Amino acid sequence: MFKIHFQLERDCVLIGHFPLSSLLLNLDAHYPWFILVPQREDITEVFQLNEQDQRQLMIESNTLSALLYEHFQADKMNVAALGNVVSQLHVHHIVRYRDDPCWPQPVWGVVSATPYTEKTMLMRLEKLTAKLALIGCTVCWAAHPAE
Amino acid sequence: MFKIHFQLERDCVLIGHFPLSSLLLNLDAHYPWFILVPQREDITEVFQLNEQDQRQLMIESNTLSALLYEHFQADKMNVAALGNVVSQLHVHHIVRYRDDPCWPQPVWGVVSATPYTEKTMLMRLEKLTAKLALIGCTVCWAAHPAE
Repeated sequence: MFKIHFQLERDCVLIGHFPLSSLLLNLDAHYPWFILVPQREDITEVFQLNEQDQRQLMIESNTLSALLYEHFQADKMNVAALGNVVSQLHVHHIVRYRDDPCWPQPVWGVVSATPYTEKTMLMRLEKLTAKLALIGCTVCWAAHPAE
Repeated sequence: MFKIHFQLERDCVLIGHFPLSSLLLNLDAHYPWFILVPQREDITEVFQLNEQDQRQLMIESNTLSALLYEHFQADKMNVAALGNVVSQLHVHHIVRYRDDPCWPQPVWGVVSATPYTEKTMLMRLEKLTAKLALIGCTVCWAAHPAE
């Protein structure tokens, strides 16, 4: 049974689900940093997905990238499947700005993560979620969970 | 007219051409590090390609990754479209090993590049080029160019 790797669960919050992939927000408030995790067991490389899933991942990745680029007025998107630490296939989609903390370097291992507050996460996500729904994401994140 | 960015030309050697993308070898002998550059003008993000080109890039990227993974007996592939320094769209395909110089970190900015010698480049490429031809790459690199 597919299960998101515990290190991704620990470092991220679940935002929703595309037909193939779960969408996570990485808990580093320095950047709008999202991760797609195809809901398939025992896959570490994109080419190990079957052809239909490869096409679906491409659609989800490119649609998500275009949305993030426009919504956050990015200078550049960084899209990467690395997996040296967590080998479960996951694809980073990171919005980069020329004045962000480690531009022009890649984000990994340069600057320590800065946590979100309830307010900064709300600011980052509240207007995005409606747009995610329009591109086929079933959003499960809510600003005010039932108490 | 499409032209490969001068920084990519300076840092890489041209290996051949897929239907959409030029294939480069990055001149850092630490890793088998290849780069696909779609031959399209003024594109910085994958989602800016038209749909047919997006599909073609996916095919070229996944076919190349699978070949490199098998040929070099990789522990992990790192596949990434970053472009913070050179914004022209280019997709890194880097063969990673658990004992390579910066595992498990990403390769950028950690260890200085080590140049190829004629011999080490020949060792890296000579058996690969025939396999590249089998997956649709028109190879132009030759071990012994005409003098």
